Amino acid sequence: MAAAAVAANGGGDGAQASNAPAPTRLASVYSEVQTSRLKHALPLPSVLRSPFALADGPASSAAGNPGEIAKLFPNLFGQPSVSLVPSPEPASTRPLKVGVVLSGGQAPGGHNVICGIFDYLQEYAKGSVMYGFKGGPAGVMKCKYVELTADYVYPYRNQGGFDMICSGRDKIETPEQFKQAEDTVNKLDLDGLVVIGGDDSNTNACLLAEYFRGKNMKTRVIGCPKTIDGDLKCKEVPTSFGFDTACKIYSEMIGNVMTDARSTGKYYHFVRLMGRAASHITLECALQTHPNVALIGEEVAAKKETLKSVTDYITDIVCKRAELGYNYGVILIPEGLIDFIPEVQKLIAELNEILAHDVVDEAGAWKSKLQPESRQLFDFLPKTIQEQLLLERDPHGNVQVAKIETEKMLIAMVETELEKRKAEGKYPAHFRGQSHFFGYEGRCGLPTIFDSNYCYALGYGSGALLQCGKTGLITSVGNLAAPVEEWTVGGTALTSLMDVERRHGKYKPVIKKAMVELDGAPFKKFASLRDEWSLKNHYISPGPIQFSGPGSNDANHTLMLELGAEA
Amino acid sequence: MAAAAVAANGGGDGAQASNAPAPTRLASVYSEVQTSRLKHALPLPSVLRSPFALADGPASSAAGNPGEIAKLFPNLFGQPSVSLVPSPEPASTRPLKVGVVLSGGQAPGGHNVICGIFDYLQEYAKGSVMYGFKGGPAGVMKCKYVELTADYVYPYRNQGGFDMICSGRDKIETPEQFKQAEDTVNKLDLDGLVVIGGDDSNTNACLLAEYFRGKNMKTRVIGCPKTIDGDLKCKEVPTSFGFDTACKIYSEMIGNVMTDARSTGKYYHFVRLMGRAASHITLECALQTHPNVALIGEEVAAKKETLKSVTDYITDIVCKRAELGYNYGVILIPEGLIDFIPEVQKLIAELNEILAHDVVDEAGAWKSKLQPESRQLFDFLPKTIQEQLLLERDPHGNVQVAKIETEKMLIAMVETELEKRKAEGKYPAHFRGQSHFFGYEGRCGLPTIFDSNYCYALGYGSGALLQCGKTGLITSVGNLAAPVEEWTVGGTALTSLMDVERRHGKYKPVIKKAMVELDGAPFKKFASLRDEWSLKNHYISPGPIQFSGPGSNDANHTLMLELGAEA
Repeated sequence: MAAAAVAANGGGDGAQASNAPAPTRLASVYSEVQTSRLKHALPLPSVLRSPFALADGPASSAAGNPGEIAKLFPNLFGQPSVSLVPSPEPASTRPLKVGVVLSGGQAPGGHNVICGIFDYLQEYAKGSVMYGFKGGPAGVMKCKYVELTADYVYPYRNQGGFDMICSGRDKIETPEQFKQAEDTVNKLDLDGLVVIGGDDSNTNACLLAEYFRGKNMKTRVIGCPKTIDGDLKCKEVPTSFGFDTACKIYSEMIGNVMTDARSTGKYYHFVRLMGRAASHITLECALQTHPNVALIGEEVAAKKETLKSVTDYITDIVCKRAELGYNYGVILIPEGLIDFIPEVQKLIAELNEILAHDVVDEAGAWKSKLQPESRQLFDFLPKTIQEQLLLERDPHGNVQVAKIETEKMLIAMVETELEKRKAEGKYPAHFRGQSHFFGYEGRCGLPTIFDSNYCYALGYGSGALLQCGKTGLITSVGNLAAPVEEWTVGGTALTSLMDVERRHGKYKPVIKKAMVELDGAPFKKFASLRDEWSLKNHYISPGPIQFSGPGSNDANHTLMLELGAEA
Repeated sequence: MAAAAVAANGGGDGAQASNAPAPTRLASVYSEVQTSRLKHALPLPSVLRSPFALADGPASSAAGNPGEIAKLFPNLFGQPSVSLVPSPEPASTRPLKVGVVLSGGQAPGGHNVICGIFDYLQEYAKGSVMYGFKGGPAGVMKCKYVELTADYVYPYRNQGGFDMICSGRDKIETPEQFKQAEDTVNKLDLDGLVVIGGDDSNTNACLLAEYFRGKNMKTRVIGCPKTIDGDLKCKEVPTSFGFDTACKIYSEMIGNVMTDARSTGKYYHFVRLMGRAASHITLECALQTHPNVALIGEEVAAKKETLKSVTDYITDIVCKRAELGYNYGVILIPEGLIDFIPEVQKLIAELNEILAHDVVDEAGAWKSKLQPESRQLFDFLPKTIQEQLLLERDPHGNVQVAKIETEKMLIAMVETELEKRKAEGKYPAHFRGQSHFFGYEGRCGLPTIFDSNYCYALGYGSGALLQCGKTGLITSVGNLAAPVEEWTVGGTALTSLMDVERRHGKYKPVIKKAMVELDGAPFKKFASLRDEWSLKNHYISPGPIQFSGPGSNDANHTLMLELGAEA
């Protein structure tokens, strides 16, 4: 039963119920590219290559409601961020016991964070022991782990995926679960725990740090910023790892589809991209490829767009392109688009209410229970989407918004609108939509050189912070527009990223997701060019990620624009 | 009207109704990788770098029914294949007028064939003029063309897609259409026409060659082997271009999905791959990535498999893997799978008959018109597939087999079978399927180094054959396991690849598609390893196509195994 539960969370290759070291990889069957990446030496920021000390910054506050955050984190609130600075004397060389856990969805580079921690300990704290918790936070709670040795870790160097120790989506939430985590780190006598995850996981890491500190335990907790969605970042943490690789993989595919569209001359490709909460991926892919349309959820929300206005926007561009003789195009859609449209949220809330209490009669009498605007919206939806809304429900009976194939929905709505215009003599061409969803392909690719280097520095830096006795920090690697040697390394107080949300009558700490800023450099560049892209075909095909030669060393546009390193 | 028709066939960026040269690309907005490929120098077989002559092989026959082929091609039948051999005297240097046309679906490398022809003429027949027919064979019939100049051609060097002149799926079939083609080549005073296409297009090329020769016209016609499906090949033409790149792009994605599957530990990914007629792509991707299951249509047909037996095969592997603790996997499915299953063909034929004459009543009384086996099969199908079969029909009222999402169908069938076994206590785990279709992403990628070089040699060789006055040949570049300098170049009589098929009471010439040979080296290697792959996880992640460094110079497994250059 326990083994099955771990397997369901992706625990250690799904088959590793014991703690015996059995790496899931056989480097002997690696492809040439995998092998070459395996052997590739990783550069380090110069501050990590010689003795260093930590320099404290000023006392920190919170992203919002500092009073409440202070109450929730009495032991950690206010602690300064730190940065590594060169020092004549080496830090402690005492061996450490360190655990590491991967939390949430996969992101390219996770293995390099672990390699970075491991190599740091080998280099600066000889005799250290390192454990990998299997299958995510459940591994911490259930004390499922593997000892990470050089042989075990080696095949994962610069490789994609999270399968070295696998990940999971469980949370350490209840008092019992905190106690379980306490028992585990005590049993393993851990000096430190590195939590590699997104906003939720880093919030969880900080709660653990606070809990351990509150109990005067020696175990410190450090977080690392992971998510391909790119929505965990702040001034000191310029990007989350995995975003660079995922966007480049998606952009390779988008560029290929663009070339296909231009060659065939008869299809509109609607490409849905991962990114439910924020539209960073769609924005970055747009900057890389120059599509005819890219919808940015944050803008849709800010402008209070409706499904009708979004449909009209696309349809207008299709019509204008038809006038120019272009009956093809490429349209990028963030996975979470409809979450940004207020009227859709309203409709779904009403549907959940109705479906919970009433029978949906074939004749449609149930529809009279919808508010007029919601009813109008429902009638506007394509029939297949109406059916999806009524039929596909989660175990709680709620509409499964995540299952709605937004790209197919938009194709159907644009098609209907174009038929109307055709009947009015306003559209002379023939519209053919092709739908795509680029998702899983991007989460587990071989990390780019940027993500490989960034993650290795994050791991190395995490080791340094632990060795210096720090807790409740997220590792921050900065100055990323410069060569790796000049990157800065430090740690940022996790509490300084937090605000509170009221849930079930209590304040809960949350790290606010970093949304696309409509006055930020990446969006402003996109907004200034999109009209030109919509009618002219300035498609760019970024091509496959390269590991040597031209194009191999560039970081993504979003990061470079935010750092002011690209105009 | 004419412009719209050309646009619908993908004529010249969909917007080029005139013959004015206006390249669709702006090399100024190329990505770094595109730019580096643009500047990359292309190597040539040494026989093309110095004076050469043509050496005739023995007289040729046909692939089948030589008597009928001889009647259909009285002027061309029996002509020998030729190969280029070094010669002290240079061939003629008279300038030529040459047209080129891209026919059918896109394949990476098409632009390099055109670049090869262009460069050959510049080098060996100074003063030549070259025309690109726009939007495929329709461009030949309608005399829609663009003059290809160095500036026009340059931005497409080593780039993916067919958008330099675009392609189309029209055929030159009727006497009127042959006359149109005749008028066009006469108007342009063409010495030669190069047809870049698949089996149908090369058959068409040979018919044109015969027609022109029969009329004592000077225009010669040369074919080039293009198709990502890999089903146009023979002893002298070891592979069709585009197959190498497409398989590597799909394999990159499959490898990523495999890493994702292993990391998450809870999904079975069902990946449908392009390749309707033959399963070469699925086989090659299997050799590159080592999936748990790969279905090969030709084997399914040879073993007279049923949908039930295919479902059971997959389900058995899912159950065995569950016993080992692996509740995840990756399964490859060729697009044309169900075309290989006799009972499905029978059901569809019966459905077409019933749907043409009867009303499908909700109560299902219409089902009594199905033969018992077909009725049983219909009832075995998942409900969504049943609905697809009944609802989605083409303009002739026929069931649209191509629209059936085979991967989703198999997921549903495996799920149903597993539920049955679960109820019987034979399957303890939980099955979750994820479906993927990798198609458009692979047709237009940047060509690999192999496809870039191979296509350039094909183009250069086509120029040489035309200059030597040859017609009705397909350009053949051989010895492909050796370095490019050692590649051989020649031409193979298109009639020698042909057989006849009886259609509408007449014999029609056809180049038989090269199917996966069950006693060929690629399938045998796959068959010898698949049982191990099914239970152990020997996944390989080939990674993105590289243009320099490790992995950049390898050709695909299928080709190397067929050439005996790989064990």
